[in-house]
Amino acid sequence: MHSTSQQISHETASEELLFLQKQHILLLEDQRAGQQLQQQIRPKTPWEAQGIRFDHCVVPALYLTGDSLDYFVLPDGRLFLYLADVSGHGTASALISMLVKNTVREFIFGAHAQHTDAVLTPASVLTYLNQRLLTYDSDRHVTLICVIVDTVQDLLLWCVAGHLPSPVLYSDGRAAFLCGKGQPVGLFENSTYSNEQMTLPQAFSLSLFSDGVLEVLPEKHLITREAALPKLIRAAQGDYTNIVQRLGLANCSNMPDDIAMLVLSRNLA
Amino acid sequence: MHSTSQQISHETASEELLFLQKQHILLLEDQRAGQQLQQQIRPKTPWEAQGIRFDHCVVPALYLTGDSLDYFVLPDGRLFLYLADVSGHGTASALISMLVKNTVREFIFGAHAQHTDAVLTPASVLTYLNQRLLTYDSDRHVTLICVIVDTVQDLLLWCVAGHLPSPVLYSDGRAAFLCGKGQPVGLFENSTYSNEQMTLPQAFSLSLFSDGVLEVLPEKHLITREAALPKLIRAAQGDYTNIVQRLGLANCSNMPDDIAMLVLSRNLA
Repeated sequence: MHSTSQQISHETASEELLFLQKQHILLLEDQRAGQQLQQQIRPKTPWEAQGIRFDHCVVPALYLTGDSLDYFVLPDGRLFLYLADVSGHGTASALISMLVKNTVREFIFGAHAQHTDAVLTPASVLTYLNQRLLTYDSDRHVTLICVIVDTVQDLLLWCVAGHLPSPVLYSDGRAAFLCGKGQPVGLFENSTYSNEQMTLPQAFSLSLFSDGVLEVLPEKHLITREAALPKLIRAAQGDYTNIVQRLGLANCSNMPDDIAMLVLSRNLA
Repeated sequence: MHSTSQQISHETASEELLFLQKQHILLLEDQRAGQQLQQQIRPKTPWEAQGIRFDHCVVPALYLTGDSLDYFVLPDGRLFLYLADVSGHGTASALISMLVKNTVREFIFGAHAQHTDAVLTPASVLTYLNQRLLTYDSDRHVTLICVIVDTVQDLLLWCVAGHLPSPVLYSDGRAAFLCGKGQPVGLFENSTYSNEQMTLPQAFSLSLFSDGVLEVLPEKHLITREAALPKLIRAAQGDYTNIVQRLGLANCSNMPDDIAMLVLSRNLA
């Protein structure tokens, strides 16, 4: 015989379950709408401009993500891209990622942008973004990699703001991290950023990741995981689909951190 | 005697409950962090500048809200404010509200803003905001009231973009809606906005609401609810705390829509 208290607990559990299911569905619908909006405002993938192909994917830890990326043609014709990782994850970081996206776009395309003769560089974008993010009273900062590709002069210009892992350049059967470091944006008033530069190989791929990618690498320690990334990209011959497959990004779920990956490539075999 | 199937259903209910509780707590924590961030980046309340006092409150329907507001001193010394309502509610609308806030601030304080001689008006802000929001591939639009207060010339300048209810001016024992209408921003390329203007009374309050406020008014039909708003404000003698109390905003929960209210006032008895 079941006791009365067990019966009550059975009923209570069922009632609580029903109530919680209702509440949970409300939140899930809300999160999915937010997730859909984040997808909507991301740039197209794949996308091609001036012979350079852009592919990206974003795997949120929960539903919304503070990982974000953008790419487009600058008013002067060069190609611009960034991959950013807002500290933390989820909805609060997603809100800040909107500030990042909008501030960068406003700086480049916004009011009176045409009135300046200054040549845009990744460092000038990050310097501006840092100042603007600091005007908001948020406790979040942002790490990012910002890149400009000049296909006329075949130049790669980039700047790294506290971001790990570094971008990986694959070319001619070799894969290596690009150099460069700087402070995250949205932390310090006096942060300065400097550009790095190299000649763009005729055939290459450049892979940008948020640090969540380190979680899906099998190596035990962070430092060996990071070192494993160029190896994996070399094995994948720099190919986006191949990298996605080797990282298992198509099937990963319940990750502790968001993962974002952006690969640009040209003339890959 | 309880059957085996009932026992299983009991265990299943308990297990499901536990699982759901865990998932739900994750989402709740995420939502609360997002909510906290929204609060952090809102302007101070109460706030005072040039003898004008600003008070506001925001009551989200869920956790995050597409209702937003901002106020600050313009570079030319006049006071600027807006109250905006992104279509829908919840997280997706909250993401768009970040674009609204950031675009307005970038237009006014951003790069190269000092290079223009054009005098800022509510209509010029809304015209710009409309164009910029349309560059995003979102299916949300925004209604808003945008106001500039010139305390040197005692001028009130405002523009309404598809927003209901209209702002209510209380002065000298009377309360009335301000005129003005225009299309929401983020919908049509060709929307145009025009400024309304009046002399600022020495003693007044100006109340701005999102349409969620109409849900807490007891009147049956939307049109009578709207009409009830100036009456309520007159009864409250234009006083913020009094309006909050009469609307019951301190205790309302599980509202179908977000509610935002912003009241500016000077020399109220």
